[in-house]
Parts: sequence; C-alpha cells; structure tokens
Amino acid sequence: MVQECGTERIAGCQFNLSVMSDDFAEVILGALDQVDTSKVWKETDDVSTCVRGRIEHVFDVVQGIYLEAAKTGKHVEMSGTFSIGCPGDSSGDAYVEASPERLNAPSKDIQQKAGCKFALYPMNTTNYMDVIYEQIDLSKEAGVTVSPAHYATRLDGTVPDIFSAMESSFTKVQEAVSHTTMTFTISANSPSNS
Amino acid sequence: MVQECGTERIAGCQFNLSVMSDDFAEVILGALDQVDTSKVWKETDDVSTCVRGRIEHVFDVVQGIYLEAAKTGKHVEMSGTFSIGCPGDSSGDAYVEASPERLNAPSKDIQQKAGCKFALYPMNTTNYMDVIYEQIDLSKEAGVTVSPAHYATRLDGTVPDIFSAMESSFTKVQEAVSHTTMTFTISANSPSNS
Repeated sequence: MVQECGTERIAGCQFNLSVMSDDFAEVILGALDQVDTSKVWKETDDVSTCVRGRIEHVFDVVQGIYLEAAKTGKHVEMSGTFSIGCPGDSSGDAYVEASPERLNAPSKDIQQKAGCKFALYPMNTTNYMDVIYEQIDLSKEAGVTVSPAHYATRLDGTVPDIFSAMESSFTKVQEAVSHTTMTFTISANSPSNS
Repeated sequence: MVQECGTERIAGCQFNLSVMSDDFAEVILGALDQVDTSKVWKETDDVSTCVRGRIEHVFDVVQGIYLEAAKTGKHVEMSGTFSIGCPGDSSGDAYVEASPERLNAPSKDIQQKAGCKFALYPMNTTNYMDVIYEQIDLSKEAGVTVSPAHYATRLDGTVPDIFSAMESSFTKVQEAVSHTTMTFTISANSPSNS
C-alpha cells in the first residue's frame, strides 16, 4: 500500500513544522497548544502531524500553527501536503459536519512575511495542466507576489495572504478534479533574508 | 503558471533541510559543503534547494546532504518532492550526460535510523493506483519496516535503506508513467523517540 488518502470531500493536510532553534520542542508544542483544533481531527507522531476536516478548517488550523511558531521570530519552516478526494481513510470523517466559522482567523494587522513554494497535483486526469490553467489566476490573489520556481510556484507576502492564495487555488481545482493534492513549503525569518 | 517541472528524463528534487538547533545555519551549510554535487545542477534560496540530474545522482546527493546533517545527532528533518518528466524547465539538462557512478554512496556501516513518510503521484493518467500497485512491492525492500500513514506510506529503518526503497519505487513508477512525482518527509534524532 503506497497511499492512504482522505475520503470524498473530507480534506486533510499532513505537515511538519520545523523550528530552527534549541528550544524547538517548546515552540512547536506551544504553537499546537495555542491553536483551536476543535473542528478538525488531529494526529501527531515523530515525523509529522495530520489534520482532517472541512477545507476551510484544515487551512485555518495549519495557518494558525504556522503563525504561532513564526511570531517567535525564529526561523520557522513548514512543509506539507493538502489532499482531498482519495479513498481509503475515514479518520475524522465526522468533522465534515462542523460549522463553517473559522476558529483561528488571523488578525488583519498581521504583517509576518514569508516565502512559499507550492505545487498542485490534480490526480486521475489526463488534462491536469489545463485544469490548473482554467481554475487558477494567481494574479487575482491580493497581496502576494507570484514567481516561477523549479517544480513549483513561489508566493511572497504575508502569511495570511499566502495561505489565502493557496486555499483559493486548492478549493478551485478540487471543484474540477475530485482527487487533488497540493504540496507546499513556507519559510519565515530566514537569516538568508536579513 | 503553477508548475514548472523537469524535462524528459532529467529528474530533480526540490527539498528543504531543517535542523532544530541554534546553529542550524552552520550545520546546513556544512552538509551542503561536504557532499560532492558535481554531477547535479543545484540552486539554493531562502525556502529550499533544487537539484537536477540523473535519477541516481539526485537521490545520491539528497541522501548525502541528509546524512551529513543527521550525523551531528541533532533533530534533523527534510521534506521534498522528487519529480521527473514534466515539461517546462531545462535548468541543468546537460547533467543527464554524467556517468552513473555515485559520488556519495554511503558506507555500509551507517546505522543512522530515521522515520519517513512518502507518497507517489503518477501524473497524467487515470489508473495511477494500478500503476503504483503493479510497480511497487515494498515488502521486497531490505531493511525497512513499512506501515500505512495518512496520505502516505511510512518507512522506518536506516537512512540508506529508506532512500534505497524510495529510489527503487520512484524509478519503477517513472518507467511506467512519464511524469511522476514523489513527496517525502524524513526525520531523525527526534526527542519523541528517546
């Protein structure tokens, strides 16, 4: 068995949060503790964390955890894969019933900058590039600078604007292609930028 | 533009190496410095590193960098995406001419343990699950323990055995499906395991 993915219309994200400091454990556990995860199913092991639920809550929680860690000012990276529509896993299916109000919507005044590379993979289709071009117009996403990267598209901006652009892209593509995955790596406070 | 991928038969990997310690920059730069990357094209920015070349050299270099960082004993994670067969990017195409001998083959006595989650995405096909089942038999991969994970398959073992199993899987699937991507997250020396 190589892939176990989410059931129809339950979305999920498998991600790992990396904090480049000696006190990484406290920062990571603190971030996980500060975010309200009551509308998602969640499981953490030594490699990564998986959350599952409605698309908006999966993005809300993943962004919330990243923001909590990044606000320490330490160099913080997160990599992960959002996925929807792949059969085989029913963990947390009941969370699809959660109400749509987000529990961790970021404040409008958050100015935390980041750089992010992401790639969309519409599965089980032979016209995946057409789907991407038809569904997504990143030039309409407020606040982010878009540039090409190897095997990915790069977004620069504030963390909320970056996550908003990714959520919008993922949501549009999964309306056209039932099984869609999206990989991302987001980095903030890198000494390379100072 | 959402994806820019490798040209036919040049493979590549976009990855980020995270070292959970205050001296992360020295560890990462030291690891990049210790590995012989002369058979791959390489580019690093503040978010991630991209290497491109023959499949065996891409895996050789990515594994070499990870091993160098992990042998410090610090908690080290790497996430990335291997990719082959997606049109649009010709960076480093000439490296496909490199001879097949690996420059960073690990010593047989390396016992560095790790945990890894990976997922294969054969693109542009409507029978991707069949391809995966037909091409891969992880039970034949020496040294690794295989278990299901959410949105992924988990491998536990030594770093060389884990990379060998991933390279074998990626190589077999890309023989059947021209455009194939494979995501992975590998973690070593996590305090969760002590």
